[in-house]
Amino acid sequence: MDRREQLLGHNMPLFYRNPVQIVRGEGVWLYDEKGNALLDMYNNVPCAGHCHPHVVKAIQKQVAILNVHSRYLHEGILNYTDRLTALHAEGLSSAVFTCSGSEANEVALNMARIATEGRGIICTDAAYHGNTAEVARLTRRGGEQSREIRSIPFPQCYRPIKDNLTPSALTDLYLAELESAIEAFTKDGTALAGMLLCPILANEGLPNIPPGFMPRAAKLIREAGGLVIADEVQSGFCRTGCWWGYELMDFEPDIAVMGKPMGNGIPFAGVVAGTELVNIFRDSTKYFNTFASSPLQAAAGMAVLDVIESENIRQNVIDVGKYLANELSQLQESCPFLGEVRGRGLFIGLEWVRDRSSRTADPEGAYEIVNCMRNKGILISNAGALRNIIKIRPPLVLQKEDADLFLTAFEESMREFDGAI
Amino acid sequence: MDRREQLLGHNMPLFYRNPVQIVRGEGVWLYDEKGNALLDMYNNVPCAGHCHPHVVKAIQKQVAILNVHSRYLHEGILNYTDRLTALHAEGLSSAVFTCSGSEANEVALNMARIATEGRGIICTDAAYHGNTAEVARLTRRGGEQSREIRSIPFPQCYRPIKDNLTPSALTDLYLAELESAIEAFTKDGTALAGMLLCPILANEGLPNIPPGFMPRAAKLIREAGGLVIADEVQSGFCRTGCWWGYELMDFEPDIAVMGKPMGNGIPFAGVVAGTELVNIFRDSTKYFNTFASSPLQAAAGMAVLDVIESENIRQNVIDVGKYLANELSQLQESCPFLGEVRGRGLFIGLEWVRDRSSRTADPEGAYEIVNCMRNKGILISNAGALRNIIKIRPPLVLQKEDADLFLTAFEESMREFDGAI
Repeated sequence: MDRREQLLGHNMPLFYRNPVQIVRGEGVWLYDEKGNALLDMYNNVPCAGHCHPHVVKAIQKQVAILNVHSRYLHEGILNYTDRLTALHAEGLSSAVFTCSGSEANEVALNMARIATEGRGIICTDAAYHGNTAEVARLTRRGGEQSREIRSIPFPQCYRPIKDNLTPSALTDLYLAELESAIEAFTKDGTALAGMLLCPILANEGLPNIPPGFMPRAAKLIREAGGLVIADEVQSGFCRTGCWWGYELMDFEPDIAVMGKPMGNGIPFAGVVAGTELVNIFRDSTKYFNTFASSPLQAAAGMAVLDVIESENIRQNVIDVGKYLANELSQLQESCPFLGEVRGRGLFIGLEWVRDRSSRTADPEGAYEIVNCMRNKGILISNAGALRNIIKIRPPLVLQKEDADLFLTAFEESMREFDGAI
Repeated sequence: MDRREQLLGHNMPLFYRNPVQIVRGEGVWLYDEKGNALLDMYNNVPCAGHCHPHVVKAIQKQVAILNVHSRYLHEGILNYTDRLTALHAEGLSSAVFTCSGSEANEVALNMARIATEGRGIICTDAAYHGNTAEVARLTRRGGEQSREIRSIPFPQCYRPIKDNLTPSALTDLYLAELESAIEAFTKDGTALAGMLLCPILANEGLPNIPPGFMPRAAKLIREAGGLVIADEVQSGFCRTGCWWGYELMDFEPDIAVMGKPMGNGIPFAGVVAGTELVNIFRDSTKYFNTFASSPLQAAAGMAVLDVIESENIRQNVIDVGKYLANELSQLQESCPFLGEVRGRGLFIGLEWVRDRSSRTADPEGAYEIVNCMRNKGILISNAGALRNIIKIRPPLVLQKEDADLFLTAFEESMREFDGAI
């Protein structure tokens, strides 16, 4: 720890009060330096599991043959793009690749701004889309209201902006917030470029979204001349049981941004959009990214798609995800602090609250549970706008037996927490 | 080509009139789909050579064991940071890692701005530091003059801003430009954050820099309260025969930015700076980068340092670089279009001009030579502020025999070009 602080600076993010030192990974398991096994219920990058042999082999093969930038012709990235775009909505037929989700969101914002000749971007008030200066402007806690960026309260059913409304009235209310943001841009003379949202609002806390919000929001944005950008960095690649978060939420974006699980750990991210949009972007920017669109990215990405398809990962996500959510919902009855169990597929969020009637967020309690689970050898974390959401998002190869290990430990942790209060 | 345009959009950068399709790389050689060997005299990422067995093995080993983000403890990145900072000037003792040079320059700019509480950045009028929105603001051709960014004419001896000056008077003149930029910020009420420069001005065209400019510029910046940022993405890791461009240019930066050759092709970049600076940055940003500071980056980076040290790469760069530059200087006498041969180590720039007396840049001619060389199986390219610089920057393992192949082809190309005019 001291050495880390000296070499990498203090306040470099680290999980758990008693941090984990890991030396090896395999499937849903991580191993510490003493050989202890830790069940990984949190890493959303190694979607095929840590060190999946097929992915490892593909990477090993490619790095020994060729790994170079994209100013030459190479079939790898073309074959990958063919396969990736075929998995997307019909209009999303061309791609721009990058190394990180931040870079991909940079491309998406720039693409929308160039294509619309507008600058205004709408996001939510508890979003996270990356760490570069331009993208980080979308991440101000409490929301940003400036000439180029306007945030809206993120749509949710658990702590709605107004109580005692019917679900559809709540949808209307959040859409009215969106309309206000659009009008505010108009008043400022800022042309709208678009809206950038994670379809499942993962960083906001994975809320249940008032019904029909996403498709109706997309329609409003388009009517106002903007483009709809789906940040699929967390929701993509079957995480929710659908290939993409936008399918689950029933809308089609103009630009879809992908990242984390794309290369199972190899830095690989990018966007898909209509060919015309990509052409407008490339004409204006001559975009080039040294490490992106490489044979290595293509090989890793291809192997990930192989695994998802050949191992029927999507069905596994649906089945194990449903089992896990059902079991957690049953635990809820015996736990006054578990305010809500939500999510889809292998992306589950638990509202940790002081008590169910007040719904007061309890981030310290959530952190206690996370640390208690870590001491039982199960890795999860807490996140969300109020930091009180216990997030569960294991590699997508998690099996029912693994889920049972998690559930047993979670029930124990709940009891211990209850007993300690 | 059609398929590439459909899938990746048009105007995606591509080398050569007759583009190269490559399928394999080894050392300084690339191979096309028909098995033709192409001598790579341009790729500055695979510094240890394409697919160097030691680097390949290190990557292969690590991806099979563990590849995960940095919110756990892992020794790999600590060992790498220890070794990397020991190669730098004494004060540069801590690191922040990223995936790309663009991301690393984002970190550097942000670090300088947070630490100084200033916003003003000085760069040159023909710089390139990356493709993210904030960093791309430093890349406006013809220079940017805004409240936060001011560019100065890049210091050079070949086409100086004023003719017939002694070298030291020319240095003074360029420093006066820097002073004007600092004063302009003061006038605007913009506090100075710092200066971001490639120590050898690689993208500007690798000019001979008026003597003493860099250390004196660094001093002026510090006296004005700013930090000195060296973008070592191109000049670092022994490219010039020194470990770092700032050594060659005789100054010490507050922040050094590294990228391209760092992982021999694995996306790996970052900055080193004083521990206090890194702490200020981390306190303010809680910077996290999903794919960075990973065991994979550490393994690849470590293997690159192994190769540089065990194969005595720095001496090879000095020896073969000197040979190449000398031979090219001799060719210059017989070629009226070769205005200047410059550079250090295995980074050589050739001024391609209409004629030596007018010094009129000839970017079309440079592009002809590049394409003529490509048809002879030698890969180079043209770049620089006026696009007329023929750039030579092979993998650092280039041998004298390889240099001879290049020289023979270059002499032929020069003759053919001369004959065709």
